[in-house]
Amino acid sequence: MENTVEQQDKTAQVITPSQLLEHWQGHRRVTRRTIEAFPEKEFFTHSIGGMRPFSGMVSELLAIAVPGLKEIVTGETTTFNENLNHGNSKATILQWWDEATEQINELWSEIPAEKFQEHVKLFGQYEGPVQSQIFYFIDNEIHHRGQGYVYLRSLGVEPPFFYDRS
Amino acid sequence: MENTVEQQDKTAQVITPSQLLEHWQGHRRVTRRTIEAFPEKEFFTHSIGGMRPFSGMVSELLAIAVPGLKEIVTGETTTFNENLNHGNSKATILQWWDEATEQINELWSEIPAEKFQEHVKLFGQYEGPVQSQIFYFIDNEIHHRGQGYVYLRSLGVEPPFFYDRS
Repeated sequence: MENTVEQQDKTAQVITPSQLLEHWQGHRRVTRRTIEAFPEKEFFTHSIGGMRPFSGMVSELLAIAVPGLKEIVTGETTTFNENLNHGNSKATILQWWDEATEQINELWSEIPAEKFQEHVKLFGQYEGPVQSQIFYFIDNEIHHRGQGYVYLRSLGVEPPFFYDRS
Repeated sequence: MENTVEQQDKTAQVITPSQLLEHWQGHRRVTRRTIEAFPEKEFFTHSIGGMRPFSGMVSELLAIAVPGLKEIVTGETTTFNENLNHGNSKATILQWWDEATEQINELWSEIPAEKFQEHVKLFGQYEGPVQSQIFYFIDNEIHHRGQGYVYLRSLGVEPPFFYDRS
């Protein structure tokens, strides 16, 4: 009986909340490997065409994921702050990344399925249904990580496999 | 009454099939603007770190979207072929892009909601539920387009706004 209910729930959904969480965390594992692949110095300095170093992009991702999800859960407006005091340490950023992984899992468990279609405004300005906000978080991460891949290639470093989300 | 049913359907879904189509087509509009932003010659030649020119990545996207979706709809195995005979013409690729836009809309209307959780194998080798296949199509496009943004910046060309999906 439980199997049938679960089956119905799964077939009713294009993507279930738990599948979407796994989808995001899978991408976050690839991003973590991308950070690891950078030589320490170049992570904070390497740039192409006047763009930010990859550390700047990762700071943005950290400033969006947990604060944005927390605002979705609590409804309390937060300000966007990507000026993180990482002291040019990759280890610090990787530690924050892992802490965010846990916090995302915890916050996710507080989002009921019907919440994904609710309209919210995040960081005092970005409006849309919760699902579109979360897809923006994920897509923005994929976008910047793709840029990080070019940085790595230009440094002669092989990026992680895009398709391996384990 | 109809409103209530629609409301229930919408709140039951994390993302509805029509929202997912619009999500994808919104990204495809950004990719189209990215192709347009490239100078004709550099679209087919510019490279960083030994990577493909952006035309090669776009050929891959064209080889995935409609053929992959057609395989999801018909169940007929297709082979992956990204060696498109574009004759180094951006206009030809843009025309194919627009034709694919229409074909995606038509094929999408043939995918019932319960299909997204069905397990399929595409191009004779990639296995997973339909939703994960479609998210792979979209994510792969975002990934390569992000790389195209770096190419554009390195050429001194401003890429389109990532957040504008209109």
